[in-house]
Amino acid sequence: MDISVVNALTYDDFVKIFGNVVEKCPLISAAIWSHRPFKDLADIETHITEFIESLSDSGKEGILRCHPDLAGMDLQSGTLTRESQEEQSQAGLTTLDSAEILRMYRLNSQYKERFGFPFIICVRMNNKADILRQLSDRIQNERALERERAIEEVKKICSLRLHNVVLSDIQTKL
Amino acid sequence: MDISVVNALTYDDFVKIFGNVVEKCPLISAAIWSHRPFKDLADIETHITEFIESLSDSGKEGILRCHPDLAGMDLQSGTLTRESQEEQSQAGLTTLDSAEILRMYRLNSQYKERFGFPFIICVRMNNKADILRQLSDRIQNERALERERAIEEVKKICSLRLHNVVLSDIQTKL
Repeated sequence: MDISVVNALTYDDFVKIFGNVVEKCPLISAAIWSHRPFKDLADIETHITEFIESLSDSGKEGILRCHPDLAGMDLQSGTLTRESQEEQSQAGLTTLDSAEILRMYRLNSQYKERFGFPFIICVRMNNKADILRQLSDRIQNERALERERAIEEVKKICSLRLHNVVLSDIQTKL
Repeated sequence: MDISVVNALTYDDFVKIFGNVVEKCPLISAAIWSHRPFKDLADIETHITEFIESLSDSGKEGILRCHPDLAGMDLQSGTLTRESQEEQSQAGLTTLDSAEILRMYRLNSQYKERFGFPFIICVRMNNKADILRQLSDRIQNERALERERAIEEVKKICSLRLHNVVLSDIQTKL
């Protein structure tokens, strides 16, 4: 990627391209556009991280609540964002058997009941077995710790999505 | 509205119902769900206002950039959110003649070029003539003043959308 191409984008086009690097939070990409010119991709990532860290605890929980359940209703009904669909497919979550779907549903429900936000993990860095194990483990965390843990996963997902945007041809996204 | 019905909503349902009271910023409704139980509708509005005010200048600009142009491409191509579509229709922006569309387009472009965010006005409180006049006037503001001015309009739009949610039957939105 030539960063000068990114720096020349209007906010409309910037949000169109980078708007979902944090799931369903175009506000974040739209906000950091103010910090152009960016030095490089890492600079964009730093501004996003700083924005997330600047939020109150409830603001961070707001980000988490914009994420879909893993192997949940949106996956079953085809209403995931394109990025989530690709990620959950690659992790094997589209080929769970019915027992696995039920186990995931039960654990997700318990997790959401306990924390008031969905279980988030960078599925591209974990396989199906890892995901289920971590879901079982993390559900036992204290709320504040788990919120921070989930936000770290949001940052990992964001980082991979940013790199994905850059690997693809920006022109084709306009 | 019985506020107890709202307070009993899961975050999923709360975001489904209130997610677009600030245009394309479900993060905000998702964040303030943390503050349940709400005393009443005004309490929800206060939490949203406080969230908006807690953001940095670039964060506020992020909110502004999530809004569509008035009488712009999204209106012409039918890709506005349901709420924006209703509001722009009621203000008469769907029945502009071609000279008016071009004038609006030219002024919107100049405004966006100057400020780096779109012109926002609570169209339900203004008719077509008011909107064009205010666009011509506000384009001459200083940037910081105009950012605050636009955020005040976001709050008015949010307030009317909140009341609209309440007037409709919440059950039918689930």
